[in-house]
Amino acid sequence: METGRTEAFSDGVFAVAITLLVLDIRVPLTAFDNLWRAIIDQWPAYLGYATSFVTIGGIWLAHHGVFRRLQYANSRVMQINLLLLMAVTFLPFPTRLVAQAIQDENAERAAVIFYGLTLLAISVLFSALWGTVARDRELLKSGVTDEEVTAILISASPNIGFYVGATAVAIAAPRVAAFGYLAIAVVSVLRARGDKVAPRAA
Amino acid sequence: METGRTEAFSDGVFAVAITLLVLDIRVPLTAFDNLWRAIIDQWPAYLGYATSFVTIGGIWLAHHGVFRRLQYANSRVMQINLLLLMAVTFLPFPTRLVAQAIQDENAERAAVIFYGLTLLAISVLFSALWGTVARDRELLKSGVTDEEVTAILISASPNIGFYVGATAVAIAAPRVAAFGYLAIAVVSVLRARGDKVAPRAA
Amino acid sequence: METGRTEAFSDGVFAVAITLLVLDIRVPLTAFDNLWRAIIDQWPAYLGYATSFVTIGGIWLAHHGVFRRLQYANSRVMQINLLLLMAVTFLPFPTRLVAQAIQDENAERAAVIFYGLTLLAISVLFSALWGTVARDRELLKSGVTDEEVTAILISASPNIGFYVGATAVAIAAPRVAAFGYLAIAVVSVLRARGDKVAPRAA
Amino acid sequence: METGRTEAFSDGVFAVAITLLVLDIRVPLTAFDNLWRAIIDQWPAYLGYATSFVTIGGIWLAHHGVFRRLQYANSRVMQINLLLLMAVTFLPFPTRLVAQAIQDENAERAAVIFYGLTLLAISVLFSALWGTVARDRELLKSGVTDEEVTAILISASPNIGFYVGATAVAIAAPRVAAFGYLAIAVVSVLRARGDKVAPRAA
Repeated sequence: METGRTEAFSDGVFAVAITLLVLDIRVPLTAFDNLWRAIIDQWPAYLGYATSFVTIGGIWLAHHGVFRRLQYANSRVMQINLLLLMAVTFLPFPTRLVAQAIQDENAERAAVIFYGLTLLAISVLFSALWGTVARDRELLKSGVTDEEVTAILISASPNIGFYVGATAVAIAAPRVAAFGYLAIAVVSVLRARGDKVAPRAA
Repeated sequence: METGRTEAFSDGVFAVAITLLVLDIRVPLTAFDNLWRAIIDQWPAYLGYATSFVTIGGIWLAHHGVFRRLQYANSRVMQINLLLLMAVTFLPFPTRLVAQAIQDENAERAAVIFYGLTLLAISVLFSALWGTVARDRELLKSGVTDEEVTAILISASPNIGFYVGATAVAIAAPRVAAFGYLAIAVVSVLRARGDKVAPRAA
Repeated sequence: METGRTEAFSDGVFAVAITLLVLDIRVPLTAFDNLWRAIIDQWPAYLGYATSFVTIGGIWLAHHGVFRRLQYANSRVMQINLLLLMAVTFLPFPTRLVAQAIQDENAERAAVIFYGLTLLAISVLFSALWGTVARDRELLKSGVTDEEVTAILISASPNIGFYVGATAVAIAAPRVAAFGYLAIAVVSVLRARGDKVAPRAA
Repeated sequence: METGRTEAFSDGVFAVAITLLVLDIRVPLTAFDNLWRAIIDQWPAYLGYATSFVTIGGIWLAHHGVFRRLQYANSRVMQINLLLLMAVTFLPFPTRLVAQAIQDENAERAAVIFYGLTLLAISVLFSALWGTVARDRELLKSGVTDEEVTAILISASPNIGFYVGATAVAIAAPRVAAFGYLAIAVVSVLRARGDKVAPRAA
């Protein structure tokens, strides 16, 4: 209950951020002579859209996993949550940069690295959120076990490693890294099964 | 309860997607000399707006019908739901294409087919969502009968057929198909009575 | 409870529509030489913003007054509610037209009349919503009295008259009508006291 | 309960307003030759983004602190709340002005003062909201003490002073004031600990 409004506000922010992404997919009117070709040429925009959508979806699932175990949120949790939301709402900006720059040799490296750093920041802030809760068990509901707390901490850590790795790859091969970010997000949503979603209700 | 936050997040996404549609209705300043004429000339934008609004509204009603019968959502339901939301938030993009292309002979066919394929994807994903639930009755609340489950499955299937048909029509007659999509959405919202909305509370 | 998700979805739509309005207030970069002057010159945009904001706010208050008295929503209520939301989300389009056209002699009449017709549609749809409920008392919670039902019906009716009047005025004097719409919205929010908001909790 | 829908609507507005801010961060395509440089050159946009995000986040925290102590909202509270939301949704406009004007000697003073006046208006309206509640104790839940009421009033007052001060500074040194607004917002979120968030659940 005590966390209800924080969840409602966070859900609102996630929902708006995930829905605004589509505003950056546009076909210029000058390309209407061959619209199928123009629709296909937008693939970098679709890649950015899918990656950011699935990333935010995955963070939402993980956020849900945290808050359903919280008894109440202290001010530190609220502050880290606000920083996490800030990084998530920032994501449409680097997403647009990647979509615009991926076919521009001069710009694609910078855009993909900048995007990766934003994803890394989101991942680090999520770990910080759960880490804060893990250190202060009074914040957790009574039924949450040590195993659960550790499992979530461990499942959050690899993502940080993956994002560091993919961003390093971006220095040499930006496009490979761009698809790598999508892969990390997809795996992250698939991995959400079992440990994060509704294990208790089963 | 267990599904409360998934519903809240989905509602947020539906609400934002349905409200963003208006951003693509614009009268160019150069047409202000005869504003009534210019307002009327925007009819393709109104058609796209109405079709996408009613389609999303219908999907929201159907989504509501599914989730009020769910006891909890497992990870597969969450993942299909995320894909469904992704298709719904994508809709403003083909909507804009149809509005811009419908008066352009070269582009209208491609735009209307692309729009139809997006509507088809939404319809298929909704059927997949309910199909997943129908195969795993433990996800459902105790009072939900086999008849109800089958009725919803059956009522979801025709839409897939209608969208396949209308998209096929778009190859020969794009404008007819464009109005067909609107008709499917309107019928779908009208059909929502009885079987999907609040039958139990009656 | 049964109406909880309809309220959540409607609230989301109202919240997004009311917040999108600001996107249409812009100062062109060419006017930055005298920014105070340019900020003041945007007064038609502020007028449109304030009018649409207060109108949507008033409709939200009235909508809240309806739904807190509802026991459940049947399909007709859901459908009229969807139409009402459609008219509300459409409002940013005529709002922008008024803001752009009010200093253009050729266009201001058409823009202000078109805006008034949209406001009238919202008002009529709200009355239709409550009228539907009023004819089917089983939809209402047990404690709602005939007096309350009639009072809300009556308080909704004048708005329709005011909007017809103000739109008629727009034919001769568009600017007067534009301020008239703002006045109607402000009065409507001020009138919300007593009969619509929280009378029972008092 | 009685205040649930007002909170949901307000949360929606806060969530949309806070997420729309990113739409104004853009790198022009002409700057893609040196994208890192162009990303860094957007610092005024980041400053505006961060300041408005943290300000809205802080107001949301404070708003949450008010409404969790409310038993019900009378019409005056609803009206002031609507005005507060109106000022919050207006914020993206002056935020954009500051981001665009801060490197323009002619415009930066006006933009920063205008932004400060908007922040001041938000702060005054928040104080008015709590002041209205403080004068009518029947609106509050039974457990709320006089000390709590006074503490919130006092903690809201300094912000008004800070915004008056920073806006005055903007006349002589606009950039200093711009960073000052960020500092006020950050301190305001940090100060939220203890007195405003979840003191009772501790």
